[in-house]
Amino acid sequence: MLIVQKFGGTSVGDTDRITNVAQKVAKEVHAGNQVMVVVSAMAGVTDRLVGYARTLSALDTPEAWADYDMVVASGEQITAGLLALKLRAMGIPARGWAGWQVPIISSEEHGKARINRIDKGAVSESLALGEVAVVAGFQGMTEKGRISTLGRGGSDTSAVALAAAFGAGRCDIYTDVDGVYTTDPRIVRNAKKLEKVAYEEMLEMASQGAKVLQTRSVEMAMNHNVVVQVLSSFADSPIGSIGGTLLVREEDIVEKERVTGIAYSRDEARITVSGVQDRPGVSAAIFVPLAKAGVNVDMIVQNVTPDGKDTDVTFTISRSDLDNAKKVIEHTASEGKIAYRALHTAADVAKVSVIGVGMRSHAGIAGEMFTTLAEKGINILLITTSEIKISVLIEEAYLELAIRALHTAYGLDAVVEKG
Amino acid sequence: MLIVQKFGGTSVGDTDRITNVAQKVAKEVHAGNQVMVVVSAMAGVTDRLVGYARTLSALDTPEAWADYDMVVASGEQITAGLLALKLRAMGIPARGWAGWQVPIISSEEHGKARINRIDKGAVSESLALGEVAVVAGFQGMTEKGRISTLGRGGSDTSAVALAAAFGAGRCDIYTDVDGVYTTDPRIVRNAKKLEKVAYEEMLEMASQGAKVLQTRSVEMAMNHNVVVQVLSSFADSPIGSIGGTLLVREEDIVEKERVTGIAYSRDEARITVSGVQDRPGVSAAIFVPLAKAGVNVDMIVQNVTPDGKDTDVTFTISRSDLDNAKKVIEHTASEGKIAYRALHTAADVAKVSVIGVGMRSHAGIAGEMFTTLAEKGINILLITTSEIKISVLIEEAYLELAIRALHTAYGLDAVVEKG
Repeated sequence: MLIVQKFGGTSVGDTDRITNVAQKVAKEVHAGNQVMVVVSAMAGVTDRLVGYARTLSALDTPEAWADYDMVVASGEQITAGLLALKLRAMGIPARGWAGWQVPIISSEEHGKARINRIDKGAVSESLALGEVAVVAGFQGMTEKGRISTLGRGGSDTSAVALAAAFGAGRCDIYTDVDGVYTTDPRIVRNAKKLEKVAYEEMLEMASQGAKVLQTRSVEMAMNHNVVVQVLSSFADSPIGSIGGTLLVREEDIVEKERVTGIAYSRDEARITVSGVQDRPGVSAAIFVPLAKAGVNVDMIVQNVTPDGKDTDVTFTISRSDLDNAKKVIEHTASEGKIAYRALHTAADVAKVSVIGVGMRSHAGIAGEMFTTLAEKGINILLITTSEIKISVLIEEAYLELAIRALHTAYGLDAVVEKG
Repeated sequence: MLIVQKFGGTSVGDTDRITNVAQKVAKEVHAGNQVMVVVSAMAGVTDRLVGYARTLSALDTPEAWADYDMVVASGEQITAGLLALKLRAMGIPARGWAGWQVPIISSEEHGKARINRIDKGAVSESLALGEVAVVAGFQGMTEKGRISTLGRGGSDTSAVALAAAFGAGRCDIYTDVDGVYTTDPRIVRNAKKLEKVAYEEMLEMASQGAKVLQTRSVEMAMNHNVVVQVLSSFADSPIGSIGGTLLVREEDIVEKERVTGIAYSRDEARITVSGVQDRPGVSAAIFVPLAKAGVNVDMIVQNVTPDGKDTDVTFTISRSDLDNAKKVIEHTASEGKIAYRALHTAADVAKVSVIGVGMRSHAGIAGEMFTTLAEKGINILLITTSEIKISVLIEEAYLELAIRALHTAYGLDAVVEKG
């Protein structure tokens, strides 16, 4: 079986850690597997290179981003060569591959390129010779022969794309956590590690702030049915057996819980534009200028006031965008494109989401959420729902309380053995 | 006119220095020239990468050296991208080129590859668009598509090879010295900067320890008639005019001095194998095993003793090879392949060479050298000569005295103006 293993920057942070990674690769090789390894830059290297680039250039043209990519991609190239060196020193045939050598052909959007295709020929030959292929993550080559990068966290995407292209049996993503938990263990001490998570759930969890995997890589895994395992590069989990969390298709989860996990985000701010004249196109008049200014809007609620003449529009954005968003709205009003009575903003809000594919078949989950929060005296400011997720905006001060209460209410607490 | 500019690691050691380099490039561009820049890795980067590689691997196979090259070549790739970023930020169209992108096609000897050919197409198109080509030095790509490096100092070779391939009008090598001097200015304070040096003289000076340019790059310049200028990246020399030292053909030096410069080397040790049985093949019996053991032998003198039965063989080697060389000779004797009376070694010796193409036409230069040293009471231990060089081995304690005396005797002292 072909296994793709991906190791992040912390896992390859120095030569000792690269040796540790080489031992994990060796275990898979000795278990009789073909192995492809995808590596990130050593921790700190990418930041240093980005720092140099930003000191020298405003990075305000596509041409600048092309040279930026040439600089930044070298971090992964270094790790790929080093890991191949260590493997061979351990008697395991291996060779390093830069993205352009595979080649991984990407789009032309330097700094945030997308993988268009992977030519398998050269690496397949190497694998057939029994060599471990150590591929530099995060990078590709454009059709014009220039080095591209896939954007931050792109090594996850590289790993899943390679696993899909080469038909790998499993794509193991080694990180500094040992799996995906029902919620953040720093907040709920008896959070449980999940054995399996559906791709869709993982997408919601990743975008909701459970930063284990890049959203793009999860989408790609889902689209190509790549079995992804998230596990720790520091724990010594047995090879072959499942030590971390498996990302699988919804159908492959037989016993569906009502709720799989609870995600949260503190990076929230709320804006209410109240007393807006209610006419067709008023939403567009508010949100199009925000989008143009690069402000991502998340939750949106619009209420018509009792007299039916005007409306309140409330929405959430990233906290760092708050000042900018406010200015954009005021500017739009000053140009006469919208009219409103008042603008209210709040930065002390947070979002809690309960997530689970089980919602499709279990009823009453939203009601249970609202009841649980009400029992703790937590006021709900906004609600949005999808098929597998319910999110509420609350005051940030209540965030931990809300997460703990929901974690217990949905039966997610691990049974802690008494010592 | 196309100008190739090469900047070493100290010249691009941080972002401020890269900015300084960009200004030197800008001057050539604004003077109406096409410019190709060859850069080394930022000072310290290559050493760090080599350190990682050596920690992880004994580098004892060709395959290991291939991955080593992938690691180490990234240093120059980073600088090339960064300088291109800075140039464009200054409004000068530019782009970075890794060796494989040009491509510079090399031999398969990873770690010390030789340039086989340079495909000019892509870079020519870029130059024709008015772009500065910023090429990563020290590297190429093998026919198999793997990254290769040219060995230490290889960026000089990259620059000269590119200048030859593209027919550059001049190849400016910017270093931390401002030219080639009649001798080491740290020893002779009124050493003169040479305006022109013949390639052959430069080769002798480089191999004799005046470490300004890689020997290989000088050979290549000579073979392709590339006009090379050595100048300082820190002094603000006027562009177009000649601020450093020009390397030219011997015929292009009209007024030939008797002696152009004085080189020296402290890295010398002497071995005398005395009372060797004199029979055909005895020299081979001594020197072949030394060569096999990787010991480079420099000067060799063989004297037959008065009775004609046996002989003394004296030769010099690098000081660091002394212990090894002694063991090899003793081992050869223990195997019965040579027989000798005694083995004498000395590590406190040094070599002084006077160099000049003028020797071809001026007589008496050797005699003048011996007289000058004799007048200072300096004993000559060994002598070797070539058409344009006379080298003597002396006790190291007399080295500075010898250099100063010869510098004066050959009229090389600069006229120091009285302040």
